[in-house]
Parts: sequence; structure tokens; C-alpha cells
Amino acid sequence: MAGEEPSLTGGERDGSEPWEVRESYAYLGAVTERPTAQLWDLVDSVGPVAARRLIRTGRAGEELTAQTQARRDLVDGAALLDAAARVGARLIVPGDPEWPAHALQPLDRPRGRRRNGAGGVPTALRPLGLWWRGPADPASSLGRSVAVVGTRAPTPYGRTVAADLGAGASAEGFTVISGGAFGIDAAAHRAVLGVRGTTVAVLAGGVDRLYPRGNDGLLREIAETGAVISAQPPGTGVTRYRFLDRNRIIAALSSATVVVEAAARSGALSTAAWAAALDRPVGAVPGPVTSVASVGCHLLLRDRGAVLVGRTADLVELAGRMGETAPPPTGEATPWDGLDDVTRRVLEALPTAGGAAPAEVAASAGIAPATVRAVLGRLSSTGAVVRGPEGWRRSGGGGMQLSLPVS
Amino acid sequence: MAGEEPSLTGGERDGSEPWEVRESYAYLGAVTERPTAQLWDLVDSVGPVAARRLIRTGRAGEELTAQTQARRDLVDGAALLDAAARVGARLIVPGDPEWPAHALQPLDRPRGRRRNGAGGVPTALRPLGLWWRGPADPASSLGRSVAVVGTRAPTPYGRTVAADLGAGASAEGFTVISGGAFGIDAAAHRAVLGVRGTTVAVLAGGVDRLYPRGNDGLLREIAETGAVISAQPPGTGVTRYRFLDRNRIIAALSSATVVVEAAARSGALSTAAWAAALDRPVGAVPGPVTSVASVGCHLLLRDRGAVLVGRTADLVELAGRMGETAPPPTGEATPWDGLDDVTRRVLEALPTAGGAAPAEVAASAGIAPATVRAVLGRLSSTGAVVRGPEGWRRSGGGGMQLSLPVS
Repeated sequence: MAGEEPSLTGGERDGSEPWEVRESYAYLGAVTERPTAQLWDLVDSVGPVAARRLIRTGRAGEELTAQTQARRDLVDGAALLDAAARVGARLIVPGDPEWPAHALQPLDRPRGRRRNGAGGVPTALRPLGLWWRGPADPASSLGRSVAVVGTRAPTPYGRTVAADLGAGASAEGFTVISGGAFGIDAAAHRAVLGVRGTTVAVLAGGVDRLYPRGNDGLLREIAETGAVISAQPPGTGVTRYRFLDRNRIIAALSSATVVVEAAARSGALSTAAWAAALDRPVGAVPGPVTSVASVGCHLLLRDRGAVLVGRTADLVELAGRMGETAPPPTGEATPWDGLDDVTRRVLEALPTAGGAAPAEVAASAGIAPATVRAVLGRLSSTGAVVRGPEGWRRSGGGGMQLSLPVS
Repeated sequence: MAGEEPSLTGGERDGSEPWEVRESYAYLGAVTERPTAQLWDLVDSVGPVAARRLIRTGRAGEELTAQTQARRDLVDGAALLDAAARVGARLIVPGDPEWPAHALQPLDRPRGRRRNGAGGVPTALRPLGLWWRGPADPASSLGRSVAVVGTRAPTPYGRTVAADLGAGASAEGFTVISGGAFGIDAAAHRAVLGVRGTTVAVLAGGVDRLYPRGNDGLLREIAETGAVISAQPPGTGVTRYRFLDRNRIIAALSSATVVVEAAARSGALSTAAWAAALDRPVGAVPGPVTSVASVGCHLLLRDRGAVLVGRTADLVELAGRMGETAPPPTGEATPWDGLDDVTRRVLEALPTAGGAAPAEVAASAGIAPATVRAVLGRLSSTGAVVRGPEGWRRSGGGGMQLSLPVS
């Protein structure tokens, strides 16, 4: 049957798949609601052009024929490509050099390690093409990417953190992927646009139907600088399950996914669940436990193994950039750092004015007088203590400042 | 040498240790700044009365003699007991029926499982007695206890959560232990007093020196209803290292420790570190990542294995009450819950007004017409869909409400 498919062995000058192949994928991606295992099996075995022919003529096997029965005579691949072209979009397909194969490799290939975010994608979830509207290069923009997602109804805090993480990840060279929705998604996208970074919005419907309408301006700007993409063909409207499928695409295309704010049943949790299922690292931003907008994030952190993300550095580490780990946050250094216990006790037992005899210090600190004298000798050589007419005291000069610890 | 120690084999009528033993422990607990391994070894081998005599007369071995040299002639056990009695306090000692042996068992005893919070305590950290000022019964009040600790400089959010957790844990029958400090500690203590529960404040200095002075009223109220306790003898002032030692006692006495708010270098982190080292479960309350008061908590959650605590139920689960686990927080149930994917897709493809033919629904949902017809038949029997003059539609009546998912 490979002989029937000369177009597959040919190819355009730039290495991308020829028009007939593209038209066939356009058809195949639309003839079922989402790719089925049977559909991918057929494409894998006979190629997209023959697969389309077999489906159209009802010779694709009983199961696949039933799956495609409803749409097989309605879908027109060429018309879909034309519709895409009218909004400046194209279809990238498996086999194209720009196809994000690293993110959408089949599950049966060797799985990457968890923190590399290279787990395979189950056949039925691998899109048969990505509709791509925007100047961003698919391979390079998706090669180093993080998803920043969350609720459509965030708090001002959530918006701020989403913007900070979006802009921060962008400054670190990451493409920021999100769902183009109101709330957290929009805040992340906008922040990236603000720093002239690359952001990609994955839509639940067609790339010619910018949804939600209220984000029309934002999505147009993304389409002009980054990309608005979809696994669904042009003309497709949004439905509940298409949002869930869209979340899978986001999870698959991103090296790591961070949820900024999410209520207990937020769709962002499904993105996180898919990311985890695909072996992509999942992060979550904590918030006040009194905030319903953080309940989902706390669920991820408490019960689902998500990593706490508080700063861009955490997100960068999560995405697994080689050799980079976020340093732990530290407070200001104090002069007490690095002192051994006995020295600390001697220092604290010393007055800051007047003076004390070594025996007094010894009794107060509960340390043998000989030890106290040795410590005092050592400390006086560093200037930390001085011996005055009334005895030993801490030197007032600058360095050694005492305050009670927070507790 | 046991023959020299008749008082140890005797005992008061209530099973508590006789006065000479108590006086000896008062001396032994004060003669060094904190218990040393040599001191405990001696007490374990000859008993407290003989141990005191050997130390006083400089016959306790070279090392211990050096350790006790500074204070051995200054400490007066009877005077300490008198000083305690003047503020209504007493010394409870190992061997007393009320001694919290479960919490302060030596490390070489079999260790409990982590979530039981029964890890042993290193010899050098086991206090040689607890000064106890208040009506709470030591054994029962410490048997079921949680520590609620945190920064002295909390946000209003932190105070609120500390109060909620303190009152909540108290309502669940737990004693709430904290350090009596400003901020989180005080908020937790106060909330427990507010619900007439039992709270215990562990002080860094003597129980006759209520510290900080600004919490004098609070600490007095705790001493009147619960207990203000210390491992340090009456008259002892506070020092930096005594706060750290106090934190160890809190960690050891509590079944679980939760940090509510803590800056990056907060002393509360030392309490958490000690709790973890002693195999007690550690929880941390998340907060806004923009809040410096939550940095320490996020550090615990991100890097140190602390469990996220957002509600009393989380804290109760952390403390390991048998058979109790916190149910995951859930959002409101929707009519879509439990529907299979095909059914959802059919439902979404149906109009809510007018009607559609099964073939239209099939094309829209990408599902074979035969399947669509079967699903419609099933749904019509539940009343979720109706067949009108124009075709099938979703029933308007109540139950089935559609909204786009958050994403």
C-alpha cells in the first residue's frame, strides 16, 4: 500500500510535508472529535493520504468506519486549510520539521525522566496536526516552554503572581503557554506581551474563532507576536469537553505546568493532572488558606505531589533547565551565624556595659570557668569582647548586635 | 550504690517521687545549662540523689565535674522548689506518674512510626524535670497535643489562621502548645482560651518570670487554666540559646507541629527542624508568595517535607488520630459529574431550544449516529433530554444546567 502513496516519499523543498499530506491531515484531524487509537493506527500503517481515502470510502474497518460515520462526508480538508489561510493560519503536521515531536512523541517511545518532562503521549491524545496562527516558530518556541494556568476568576494576588511568573519565565527565555482564558491565563499572556516575550495561547475551538470574545484584542496580539494554536480545525466552536482536550494539549506541549490559582474543581486541575500523567513536572502557587481561589493549588501541593512555586527561579528549576536549581531563600545574616554554642552562651552572658568576671559569666552560662576564659581570650582577639576596669563586656562597636530571636 | 538511695525505692502515697528526689532533680536540672550526656548517664546509673551528692563533692568524673564546676556550689534545689511554690508551680520529674514519658522517652527505646509522633529524644535534650505552673494535668494534656508556632511579627492573615487552628484543634480535644511569644504564639494561645480549651506555654526562662512582659496577662491566664512550663529553673532569664532549647521542648512534647507564618530565619523553623528530627510530623500553613511572613513556611513545604495545613482537619490528620483523615476539599457537584465522555458530548451538542436531528448531533459531536440515538434514548428516560416537534433538545427543567468550565 506504500506504493499508493508517492506523496509521502516526495516532499517540499524546505523538508515540510506536501500539500496533499497536509490536506489529508486536515481531514483526519476533523473527521473524529479527537484522535482515536484506530485512526492513529491507520495513519501509522498506510500514511495520511491513504488513510483519508479509506475512511472516505468506508473501507477503514468496522470500528473506525463507525467512529467517522457522522462526519466523513462533511469534512473538507482543503476548505479547512483555506479557512485557516484567511486568518493567516496554517496546519503543521507530523513529519514537518517544525512539528513539536519532542512534546508529542507516542507513549511507546522511551520515556524521559520525570523532571525532563519528556514522557510520551498516549496515541489517542496526540493531535493529528496543530493549527498555528502566528509568527512564532513551533519547534523552538515549544522546545523551552512553561504553562502558566489557573482560574478564570482570580484574586488580585493571583493576577499579580501570574504576571510575575509569566514575565519572569519569559525573561529566562521560556515560551509561556496558556489557554487564552479570562483571569490567570490572560494575566500570564499579557505580562509576556509586556516584556516582548513569546507566548502561545492554546484554544479549545478553531484559531479563526478567537474565544472568549472578551479576550479578542489580547488573542489578536498573541497571534501577531507569538501564536494562537488549536488541535481543532477552523470553524470549531467551544464545548466543555473541548476545553478539557485543550488542557491536555497545554500539558503535553509544556516542559512544566504551574497552576497559579484554582478553585477545588477548576479546569486548571485537569491540566495539572494531565501534565502529571504525561510525566511533566507540576507546580502550584500557594496562597492564603482562607482564599477559595487557592484551594485547588493547596490540593495539588498537599495530596498530588505538586512542587511549591513561589518565584520564577522555582519555575525555572521545575522546568528542569540543566544545572539550575533555585537557591533557598535566606534572611539577613547575623553576627551570630557560625558561632558555636559555647561561644554564643559566653557572649550572651556578658554585659554590654560595665563588666563581669569570668566566674560570673561561667555561672550564668553554665560553662566551666576555664572554658569561659579561653573563649574570652579568643573573642578579645577578634574585638568582639573587651576587658574594662569592671571586667569583661561585649564590645559596643558595630558588629556584634544582640536581639532576641523571633520564635 | 543503690543501697545509698532508699528514697528511690520508697515513694509518696500517690506514686510520685519523694521530696529528696525532687530536690535532687531541681539541682541537677540547674547545675548545667542543659542536660549533658554525662549527667544523664550518671543519673541513670546511680539515681538523682546520689548523682547530686557526687557532683556537689566533685566526685562525678572529670568531664562532668568540669561541666558542673561553674554552678555546682551555687545551685540550691530546695530554694528552687520554694521559688516555684511561691508562684504556685511545682517540678515534675522522671518517675512521676504524670511525667510525659511518651514524649520524652530516650532515643534508644524503640522508635515509633513517624505519624505517631513517638520518636525518641536524644539524651542530651531530655529535660531533667519540667517546671509546671498551672492546673492542667501533665500526662493527659500532653498526651494529645499539637504545637502551633510562628513568627513574632505576623500578618493579620497569620493571626487569623493561628487562631482558627488553635481553636479548631482545641475543639477536637487537643492541647495547644506554643511558646507564649508575641504574634502567632499569642494568637494561638488566646484562641484556645477563648474556647475554654487547654493551652500550654513553654517558656525559655523560669516559670516565675513571665516573658515577654507584654504577654504577662495572657501568660497569667494560661497559668490559671492550662499551664506555663519550662525546663529552666525559676529565676532563669531568657537568652537566645534558651529560646532554641525551648523550641526543642515544644517539638518534643507535641504530637505534631504546625508553623503558621515564619520568615526565612524564624525561630519557628528551628522548632519544625527539631520536630522533624524527633520524628514528629511537621505541618506548614501556606500564604501569599508575596508575603515575607510566609517565606519560611514555603521553604518547609517546598524543600523540607512539611505537610500543607490549611484547616483544622489537616492538623488533626497530621497529629495522627487513628482512622481520621481529612477529606479532600471539593467544589459543588454539577449535573455533569459521573457522565461518560460520549454522553457529555451528546448533551453539549444538543440545543436547549428548538431541536436537532440525531444526524446533526452526531456530526457536531463527532459520534456515530447509532451511538447518538442510543444515548438520546437513555437520556430521555431520565428526563435530561426531550424530543419536540423540531427534534431533540436538552430539557429546560432544573437539573441539567450548562456552563463553560473554568479553565
